[in-house]
Amino acid sequence: MPTLSKNAGLMPASPIRKLIPSADIATKKGHHVYYLNIGQPDIQSPQPAIDALHNWQENVISYTRSEGTVEYRQALAKYFNSVGLEDLKPENFMITNGGSEALIFVINLIANPGDEIIIPEPFYANYNGFAVQAGVKVVPINSSIQDGFALPDIDSFEEKINEKTKAIIICHPGNPTGYLYTQEELLKLKNLAIKHNLFLISDEVYREFTYDATHHSILEFKDFEDHAIVIDSESKRFSMCGIRLGAIITRNQELLQYAMRFAQARLSPVLISQVIATAAHDSPREYLAEAQKKYQARRDFVVEALNKIPGVFAPKPRGAFYCVASLPVEDAEDFAQWMLEEFDYQGDTLMVAPATGFYSTPGAGKNEVRIAYVLDIPELQKAIKVLEEALKAYNNR
Amino acid sequence: MPTLSKNAGLMPASPIRKLIPSADIATKKGHHVYYLNIGQPDIQSPQPAIDALHNWQENVISYTRSEGTVEYRQALAKYFNSVGLEDLKPENFMITNGGSEALIFVINLIANPGDEIIIPEPFYANYNGFAVQAGVKVVPINSSIQDGFALPDIDSFEEKINEKTKAIIICHPGNPTGYLYTQEELLKLKNLAIKHNLFLISDEVYREFTYDATHHSILEFKDFEDHAIVIDSESKRFSMCGIRLGAIITRNQELLQYAMRFAQARLSPVLISQVIATAAHDSPREYLAEAQKKYQARRDFVVEALNKIPGVFAPKPRGAFYCVASLPVEDAEDFAQWMLEEFDYQGDTLMVAPATGFYSTPGAGKNEVRIAYVLDIPELQKAIKVLEEALKAYNNR
Repeated sequence: MPTLSKNAGLMPASPIRKLIPSADIATKKGHHVYYLNIGQPDIQSPQPAIDALHNWQENVISYTRSEGTVEYRQALAKYFNSVGLEDLKPENFMITNGGSEALIFVINLIANPGDEIIIPEPFYANYNGFAVQAGVKVVPINSSIQDGFALPDIDSFEEKINEKTKAIIICHPGNPTGYLYTQEELLKLKNLAIKHNLFLISDEVYREFTYDATHHSILEFKDFEDHAIVIDSESKRFSMCGIRLGAIITRNQELLQYAMRFAQARLSPVLISQVIATAAHDSPREYLAEAQKKYQARRDFVVEALNKIPGVFAPKPRGAFYCVASLPVEDAEDFAQWMLEEFDYQGDTLMVAPATGFYSTPGAGKNEVRIAYVLDIPELQKAIKVLEEALKAYNNR
Repeated sequence: MPTLSKNAGLMPASPIRKLIPSADIATKKGHHVYYLNIGQPDIQSPQPAIDALHNWQENVISYTRSEGTVEYRQALAKYFNSVGLEDLKPENFMITNGGSEALIFVINLIANPGDEIIIPEPFYANYNGFAVQAGVKVVPINSSIQDGFALPDIDSFEEKINEKTKAIIICHPGNPTGYLYTQEELLKLKNLAIKHNLFLISDEVYREFTYDATHHSILEFKDFEDHAIVIDSESKRFSMCGIRLGAIITRNQELLQYAMRFAQARLSPVLISQVIATAAHDSPREYLAEAQKKYQARRDFVVEALNKIPGVFAPKPRGAFYCVASLPVEDAEDFAQWMLEEFDYQGDTLMVAPATGFYSTPGAGKNEVRIAYVLDIPELQKAIKVLEEALKAYNNR
């Protein structure tokens, strides 16, 4: 047969989804699996969004403009105007098939094959995949679980910057870490980007979910218009991962102009998704406040419960709905697979995401896992109990 | 500001959509625009699909499996089983965000940057964009409007094949040409692909729309399992372009296994779209038969009317809902833009897609346009009248 490309082999398997076949084994055994591997929120999607779906009355499900419908971009602009970014207009938004496509477009737009992008690790695993697709090299800078994954020293960035460096990507608040950058840290990154003429790409898809703290977007900076690119998504905000709707947000008009060519090549985002998302932005403000409150209570529970398990350490995150925990095992992926395929506690087992896939440095994070707290507390309680029992059993094999 | 990538500049503007700003000018003048530029069918989406939208009763619009839902892949397999491909199973389908994403995945999966893909031109313009994104070179082989865009001589393929050649892409039936390859032509391509160990990628998204002829998929060939890759889409079949749902169909399990990594990186196709499309496959068989009949009548009308205009030549296509016409002008793009910005006939004007964007050879097709017959005959009649009057006025300026 004809051979596949090198990139096919270089594409990493998803650390979040690669254990699905093992979960299928658990399910076939009749075990109940707690899915803490994936950021699939359990929160109900907003009623106005569901209503918009039910009330849609056109005859043809047609293409939309490649950059997204006027109505949806207006709704997004209005939302961002209301959270402190008063000058953003519909023209600052390019609508994409999820935050994923926004990242793919942006990486292709700002970096040539062979160029480098610096990312503090651990980071959202799929940045690796998108970089491979673009032939771009990810240069990781290690952040430490002991420091709660705070921004590494700026000197460690300076050391890695060379003529091939095109951008820094941050996830803010972080997936998988839940870390929320402080204003001081963001300012350091801004100054660094200006000094070296780099783009700063901030993946802010969890911006609504912060705890004991306020989210500040990199779009708040003045005199940074051409450098600042934000990745947005409706997936987590309104618990609508399945509409696959994201956006590039920037004041850099040249970038948006060329992004349009990528957007036109794939024709348009999904009409129905844009109808739903436009309506979701009519949700009462309490919708987001209640979701935030729910996640905060879960965070408080999960982090405390994890740290009570002997040998487990999880720093307390201030954002998103993930935390990274180090486990008293040598190889967390082996443990995670074993839990699914060979372990149950009273008929229950657990799926977590091994953390190595969130690191770019080989071997880093080998005893860590990402846990998504996307279940109610009684469920989380049972899931953490399964984890505790599994760790005992695994280490006593 | 930081500079954009070379690829940003290399991405071609869409010939189908680049005149939208000119159409906006026409609309602002109060002119009615006949949109014959874009393959946005006017046929009503199937009622079972719309009903599925209205009846959707879950609480959370969640991710699906990265390869698509089991239900949708079963529905697709059942459909293809019913049209002569009895052995296809859900495992042979990878669901994508439109045929566009299927093409992006496939090109990345089979070719390294610098590799070559041979495509008879004119071809679907966005193949160029997807190739640029992958750093892959498109090698065009000219098919001639005089021959009705029949498959060029196999020798002309042989001349272009070298160690960098990885695949041949055909669009079957063709966009923009409407050309339907004969079984004999397909067999020649199969033998060529086997001889040189190439993939044959057949974009069959218009497979349901053929006239005076039957569509044969490259998946019908025996002993060609590892070479044959089909691009599928629900956009045209069920007049649902706005759900952005496509598929890679192949028996090459290694390719699908690696495609899964690309699919996982962008998480999942759209849940709602898959619900809608699954239901669309429950449509009565008459739905497709009626659409086919409607397009055939339009083809008969449009091609005859075009050829009656002095200086215009359009070969009669046997598939899809496009035709390419050569016009008595030097630069069809200038003419198309002029029609929108400066011409009207009784308040009406017309948007067509200049054909140069469908060619890879510079300058080729400069006096040609693509016309999509996606309006009812009375509308098409008026549109063609506008075209006739515009040609007169343009050439008498």
